[in-house]
Amino acid sequence: MSELSCAGAPPSPGAPDDVAFLAALVAAVGAAHVLTDAAEMAAFLRDWRGRFHGQALAVVRPGSTPEVAAVLRLCHGHRVAVVPQGGNTGLSGGATPAGARRQIVLQLGRLNRVRSLDLANGTVTVESGCVLQQVQQLAEAHDRLFPLSLAAEGSCTVGGNLATNAGGTAVLRYGNARELCLGVEAVMADGTVFQGLRALRKDNTGYSLRDLLIGSEGTLGVLTAAVLKLYPRPRARATALVALQGVADAVALLGQAQAALGPLLTGFELMSGACLQAVARHRPALAQPWAVEPPLAVLVEQSAFDDQAAADDRLQALLASALDSGLIQEAVLAQSQAQAQRLWAMREGISEALQHEGVQAKHDIALPISALADFLAEAQAALDGLEAPLRLMLFGHVGDGNLHFNVVWPSRGAQADAALHEAVNTRVHDRVAAWGGSISAEHGLGQLRRDENRRLKDPAELGLQRALKQALDPLGLLNPGKVL
Amino acid sequence: MSELSCAGAPPSPGAPDDVAFLAALVAAVGAAHVLTDAAEMAAFLRDWRGRFHGQALAVVRPGSTPEVAAVLRLCHGHRVAVVPQGGNTGLSGGATPAGARRQIVLQLGRLNRVRSLDLANGTVTVESGCVLQQVQQLAEAHDRLFPLSLAAEGSCTVGGNLATNAGGTAVLRYGNARELCLGVEAVMADGTVFQGLRALRKDNTGYSLRDLLIGSEGTLGVLTAAVLKLYPRPRARATALVALQGVADAVALLGQAQAALGPLLTGFELMSGACLQAVARHRPALAQPWAVEPPLAVLVEQSAFDDQAAADDRLQALLASALDSGLIQEAVLAQSQAQAQRLWAMREGISEALQHEGVQAKHDIALPISALADFLAEAQAALDGLEAPLRLMLFGHVGDGNLHFNVVWPSRGAQADAALHEAVNTRVHDRVAAWGGSISAEHGLGQLRRDENRRLKDPAELGLQRALKQALDPLGLLNPGKVL
Repeated sequence: MSELSCAGAPPSPGAPDDVAFLAALVAAVGAAHVLTDAAEMAAFLRDWRGRFHGQALAVVRPGSTPEVAAVLRLCHGHRVAVVPQGGNTGLSGGATPAGARRQIVLQLGRLNRVRSLDLANGTVTVESGCVLQQVQQLAEAHDRLFPLSLAAEGSCTVGGNLATNAGGTAVLRYGNARELCLGVEAVMADGTVFQGLRALRKDNTGYSLRDLLIGSEGTLGVLTAAVLKLYPRPRARATALVALQGVADAVALLGQAQAALGPLLTGFELMSGACLQAVARHRPALAQPWAVEPPLAVLVEQSAFDDQAAADDRLQALLASALDSGLIQEAVLAQSQAQAQRLWAMREGISEALQHEGVQAKHDIALPISALADFLAEAQAALDGLEAPLRLMLFGHVGDGNLHFNVVWPSRGAQADAALHEAVNTRVHDRVAAWGGSISAEHGLGQLRRDENRRLKDPAELGLQRALKQALDPLGLLNPGKVL
Repeated sequence: MSELSCAGAPPSPGAPDDVAFLAALVAAVGAAHVLTDAAEMAAFLRDWRGRFHGQALAVVRPGSTPEVAAVLRLCHGHRVAVVPQGGNTGLSGGATPAGARRQIVLQLGRLNRVRSLDLANGTVTVESGCVLQQVQQLAEAHDRLFPLSLAAEGSCTVGGNLATNAGGTAVLRYGNARELCLGVEAVMADGTVFQGLRALRKDNTGYSLRDLLIGSEGTLGVLTAAVLKLYPRPRARATALVALQGVADAVALLGQAQAALGPLLTGFELMSGACLQAVARHRPALAQPWAVEPPLAVLVEQSAFDDQAAADDRLQALLASALDSGLIQEAVLAQSQAQAQRLWAMREGISEALQHEGVQAKHDIALPISALADFLAEAQAALDGLEAPLRLMLFGHVGDGNLHFNVVWPSRGAQADAALHEAVNTRVHDRVAAWGGSISAEHGLGQLRRDENRRLKDPAELGLQRALKQALDPLGLLNPGKVL
């Protein structure tokens, strides 16, 4: 099972080459930024959920791009592998060392400068260790929007966001992290600096190294800085919670909302009734606003540039029409920003609430939006075939076809749970593959989904990806055991 | 000078291996689709502007992806190079054979099927030989928008649009061709089919081969099909022509328009007074709507999802405020779709009008929007230094920082014109590089800008691009002499 710890034999810290290597690291970044003490390193050698644990010769914290380059040149010369790490908030073990080889954790948190802000160009250039929320706040302070928004935004970093091509709740309108980035600076496996910090909206001068590095999870290069796009900040937001009967109706409502609101539609989040009940159990203040719990709810958000009244009118017209036609059963339009925040808190409280519901097999999947309803029916049937007391706790970004398809059951003991977990994974992912979907919509493959991706992906595509890895990192030093 | 014909010695059509190779091609795609007659091939061996001419063993017109794969396997086995060609409307010679090596033109016009239309998913899957306008019309017939829009849309193909990551007039809101594509199918240099026709808005399962192939101008693989994104079709459009004093004011107006209209702002096209005068000279029906010609005009377009009156009100409020503050001098709001089309016709008539104005050195450049005014001042000074009767004819997509920076002069004879052309190019591109810009914003490098890109781009980046080329096309068979 790919989700277990990959810790192997510890490296041999006393070997002569290691001594010289560590001394050279100290010379490059300063003794204070080369951690080798086990207690000091511990937090960097495991992921925050405690699912992955690894070993490293050192945790190295460079403070600038030239220092990153110096560290990578040293690693290249000494044939030591490098595990880039930002906020260490990933869900797939991509930032935790895997295996027993000689490797360091390259902690990029000190690269946290805002290099420049260019309001006329609508861009900000930040180093990769900047925390996402700082970028959001910087944008807001200048009456702009940086739209990337996700649960870990208070501690995840821009480098990790780009390395995993992060998604979140605003993809429907603004796209994934890749679409929010105009240029990157990166250090390649041999220490070469790729200086691609272009702040241009159009540039067709050769292959897009930017787009290749984004989403490569630190296996092709180490991102050190990026030019991010800023957007005009909406003047008003209108938010509603809608009760409906099933996913097919949610997809129909999505189509109507897109036709009526165009790019003003910025949120369309699906939550199953079971998820909302779980939230209410664990945070009673977030009980559902209606008496009879619907099978499904959708959180609809409109961002507007005129005013609140106009925004409310447009959303109300959409919902009135959907009520009249019977497509939806009930709708609650937030009457204030505080009410809107409460509706979003229900959505954002799901992950935490589910932790109390039992053992979970979580899946971060995407499908063509048109296939969602059929996929769900097939996946449910496949799970029923396991004849176990499984509950489906479904939520997600239906406007992106991205479901967090979580299967929950009462624990039967570690070994039985692990076996059931694997059986559930296989059945769900097989159905995803059959419907042309993705087994990692927004979390990346990391260690967690690497083997499953190998099992399901076309060997021709895997071969092409390996050729690219070989071209840019022929010694296999960057983030080994991840992605491929 | 890189813009001259690259025709060299013709290949030797009678060599035994060529005979076997051509026979195998005929067996693969049928005799009717292997052109070897010089007269039949002629139109495929030159670009439409007649600036590039090349040689080929044959023009091969496969009718399906398996036939493309068969042709590429044959070329790989016989070590024959492949020049992919769609509508042959490119401006940089990317689809015309270069050099004297053994090569074929791979004409993809027969791959013109719409494979599937999925309205609920907002996607259409088309083969690469589909003409852009057909895709636009298909979308419109289903009340959707495919936003890519450019001058050659009546004959350019989707494959060429993606291979050059085409831009056009809607990039401000919808992005370049790359942002409009969810998945691609491609045939690689050895005939391997990369089956990446995923119709997903989120998919983080490894390196983005899609984004690497897009913009690679047929040098890494041959695109055979793509999943394109459809958008809701706006219900109304409000269009205005605005007179202003200079580029700095245009950039300020852009900021105000973005703040007021958000994503409803879908067009912001700059035209210098000199360009508008040229249009009026050659098409008197398109004379400017004001008595005193301004130094600069901007065409502003808003797309709306409510109604025409609301759209007009919003645009009028924006323009009234800009008039009050003195930022703009005059504004004409189109009172009908016919008037709006007439305003767009002025913009679209510029390229043709300029052909009558003298010898032209055309530049397809992009800069950070904030640098446009300073760049223009410096570039003008650099041109003044040439002490020639040069006129700057400027237009472009200022919302993308993309200028069509055209320099015009009365002919002094072919040799002197060529020398002046090169001197102008060098001075303009040097200033572009100094301001962090791009020498090919939306047309691609092809043959035309390849050497200039080599001159100006960081050798480290060029080295990485060559490593990728080597990884995916180790024999250098795909579109030789282009890009790198």
